[in-house]
Amino acid sequence: MTLYLIGLGLYDEKDITLRGLEIVKKCDVVYLEYYTSVLGVDKAKLEELYGREVLVAPRDVVEKQAEELLIALAKDQDVALLVVGDVFGATTHADLLLRAKQADVPTKVIFNASIMNAIGITGLELYKFGKTTSIVFPDAGWYPNTPYDVIKNNKSLGLHTLCLLDIKVAEPSKEDLLKATPEALVKPQPPRFMKVSEALDVLMHLENTAVEKIISEDSLVVGVARLGQPDMKMVAGTIKEIKELDFGAPLHSLIIPGKLHHIEEEMLERIR
Amino acid sequence: MTLYLIGLGLYDEKDITLRGLEIVKKCDVVYLEYYTSVLGVDKAKLEELYGREVLVAPRDVVEKQAEELLIALAKDQDVALLVVGDVFGATTHADLLLRAKQADVPTKVIFNASIMNAIGITGLELYKFGKTTSIVFPDAGWYPNTPYDVIKNNKSLGLHTLCLLDIKVAEPSKEDLLKATPEALVKPQPPRFMKVSEALDVLMHLENTAVEKIISEDSLVVGVARLGQPDMKMVAGTIKEIKELDFGAPLHSLIIPGKLHHIEEEMLERIR
Repeated sequence: MTLYLIGLGLYDEKDITLRGLEIVKKCDVVYLEYYTSVLGVDKAKLEELYGREVLVAPRDVVEKQAEELLIALAKDQDVALLVVGDVFGATTHADLLLRAKQADVPTKVIFNASIMNAIGITGLELYKFGKTTSIVFPDAGWYPNTPYDVIKNNKSLGLHTLCLLDIKVAEPSKEDLLKATPEALVKPQPPRFMKVSEALDVLMHLENTAVEKIISEDSLVVGVARLGQPDMKMVAGTIKEIKELDFGAPLHSLIIPGKLHHIEEEMLERIR
Repeated sequence: MTLYLIGLGLYDEKDITLRGLEIVKKCDVVYLEYYTSVLGVDKAKLEELYGREVLVAPRDVVEKQAEELLIALAKDQDVALLVVGDVFGATTHADLLLRAKQADVPTKVIFNASIMNAIGITGLELYKFGKTTSIVFPDAGWYPNTPYDVIKNNKSLGLHTLCLLDIKVAEPSKEDLLKATPEALVKPQPPRFMKVSEALDVLMHLENTAVEKIISEDSLVVGVARLGQPDMKMVAGTIKEIKELDFGAPLHSLIIPGKLHHIEEEMLERIR
C-alpha cells in the first residue's frame, strides 16, 4: 500500500487541498504530526471535517522510531501522515521518504503552502532570500553561532535571511521510545516556542560576542507571527523597536533583510 | 470589496485548498493568470469544478495594465486572480499587492504549494538552498551572467541553487496593451518554455566564457520536469548525462547542488 505525506497548510482545516482531503478520507490510518498547536484549530475540527479518527504522533518520535512504525503500517495499509504547512517546509521529511523507499513502501506527497513561501507576503522577494537558518534556545549559556554566520554570508551577497525560531519539545521518556506503540506515541508534552524578542536577544548576544558589526540595535528587521492565519502580525522596524513588541501566540519568525528594492522598501514601509 | 490572490497548486483542479474553492465560488469575477499550460488541466476543468466562468489574463498584461484593471474592478466587486502554484512562487505578486494597497483596495492571499518548496521532493534540504536564479533564453547572442554568479556564490557557501527556466511569452501588441479591456486580455500567445538541456547549454556557455571552473561537464545536477504532477520526472546526473535526456512537456527546472549531506546523497542516488 502507500505512505501519504500530506501538507495541511498554515491555518485551519480548510487549508487542506481537495486532493489531500480525498486521500485522508480513503486511508486506513491517519496520523497528525505533533505540532498541532501551531495550526489554528485542534484535532477535533480536523476529525469533524474528515469524518474519521486522527491519531497524534509526537514530533521527536516521528523522526525516530515512529518512522519505522509508519513504514511498517504502510506495508499493507494506506497510511497518511498529516504535516502542518508543507511536507518540505521548516521540518524536513526527506529522511522518512528515504527510509520508506529503502523498505520498498510506495510514498506520495501532497504539497501545500509553507512558511518558507508564504513569507513573500511581507513584500520581500522570495528569490532574494539566501540560506534559511534556525535560532534555537541557548542551552546552558551556549549560543550556536550558525544563525550569525548565515546572516553574515547572506548580507554580504545582499540577500534576506529567514530565521525559523525554535520549538522546544520535551523529549519523550526512554521507556516510551522503546515501546513506540501508537498508544505510547499519543503523549505529547507541552512545547515551548521562541518569541521574536527572544530571537533578537540571541542575535544581539552573538553580535556582542563576535563584534563583526553584522547587525546593531538600529538594523531593520521584520517580525512575523501566525503567518497565514487571520490574526497574522508582521511588523518591520529596528531591532530596538521590534524587541519591545508583543507578537502574541506562536509561531513566530524573523527576517533580516538584505539589500532592498524600492518595491520591497515600500511594502515594508506599510508594515512599519 | 476585496482582491483575492489564490494559489492553485502545482497540478490540477484538485490542488486548490478548500478555502480557495470557497472564495472562488463567491467572487463576482474570477481571472486566471496566463500560465494555464503549466497546470495539468485546461480552464474548462476549473470552470466545471468551480461551477462558473473563468477569464484568462495574459501574464505580461497582468504585470502591467491589467493590474490596474483588477484593482479597479475590486473597488466594488469581489475579484479573484488565480495563480498557478503559490502567489509568492516563481512569479512575484508583491507589486500587485502594493498597488492595491495604494488604491485602498483590501487584499487577501490564499497560499498554496509552489515549486520553490516542492523541490524538496528531490531529497535536497530546502534550508540549504541559497538564492534562486532564473536562466533566460539568450537574446541575440547575449547571455546574462546572473545565473552563473548566483551559482558561484551559492557554491562558495556549499548551498544548492534552484534555477527557474525561462517562459517566453510573445509580447502583446501595443494596441492590445493600450485598450487593456477584458476582451483584449483574452488573447494569449503560445509561450515557449526552456528545456533542461537548453538551460545546461546556457550554463556551459557561461562557464566557457568566464572559465572560473564553477561547473564542468562532470558536475552533478538535477533536472526536474512537471514537479508535483503524476508524470513528474527528476533525474540526477552529470551535466553531460542530463543534457542528453528528454524531460518531455514543461515546466522544467534545474538544480545545481552544493555540498551534500549523506541523506541528500542517498536520495539523489535513487534518482540517478
